[in-house]
Amino acid sequence: MQSADARFKRNSLFLALRRYTSAVSEMEQTILLPSLLRDMPSDEEWDCEAAEETCKDLHGDYLMLKAIRNIVESGLIPLDDRKAKNNMALNETLTLEPLLDTDPEALFQFHVRGLFSVMSDLTKKTESLTEKYMDIIGVAN
Amino acid sequence: MQSADARFKRNSLFLALRRYTSAVSEMEQTILLPSLLRDMPSDEEWDCEAAEETCKDLHGDYLMLKAIRNIVESGLIPLDDRKAKNNMALNETLTLEPLLDTDPEALFQFHVRGLFSVMSDLTKKTESLTEKYMDIIGVAN
Repeated sequence: MQSADARFKRNSLFLALRRYTSAVSEMEQTILLPSLLRDMPSDEEWDCEAAEETCKDLHGDYLMLKAIRNIVESGLIPLDDRKAKNNMALNETLTLEPLLDTDPEALFQFHVRGLFSVMSDLTKKTESLTEKYMDIIGVAN
Repeated sequence: MQSADARFKRNSLFLALRRYTSAVSEMEQTILLPSLLRDMPSDEEWDCEAAEETCKDLHGDYLMLKAIRNIVESGLIPLDDRKAKNNMALNETLTLEPLLDTDPEALFQFHVRGLFSVMSDLTKKTESLTEKYMDIIGVAN
């Protein structure tokens, strides 16, 4: 029988954030020569055309994953946002206007779930990048 | 000159969450007879048709604000969601499919900013409800 505690842990947003920062710490400790990631093509499925700066190679992925970890740890909302252009495109795609009249409880849950989901994805990407580095330097896991 | 520390505080998501839970605590301490809020029309602008249960009167607002505070404090993602229907409608409105291929950094920032914004709105609503209760019982602020 699954305990309430186990369910709590699996579904906690705070735990998802902590899991992500731990994965990035491990990545940093493992990747001693990040420059080896340069020019290694990123096989991530996200839209690289829309985010030229960050995901053209594995080194870009590495920098992005660290940048997000810094935001998570500081808890700051990035204002001077180098991603502003992409966010504008995202906001246009999502047509945010209907949200303004939405029940705030549903809106709150939408963003909490969204954040949980994106943190889980980013944790997997971080672990995958760490493994790829191990492959590059020829160390078996 | 505005200090870096002041900017930090104003833009912190964690601070926005804490500010909200404090506002709800103060609301609970002030509203000793929540039943007085029954049948008092809610003048909130959100779409009450889409959220029949929670915002038909000020008492509904009171319960909703407390429920969200409980989720914030536990950090849990609500799975057995009485708002599931509304969230589905919200997700349909937002057409989430394009998000799947989106640069995860932009997606992360979208949800963090969204959460910050909704927490600020909910804090104002909580403070406003507390003031309305004071008016109802005839106590000047």
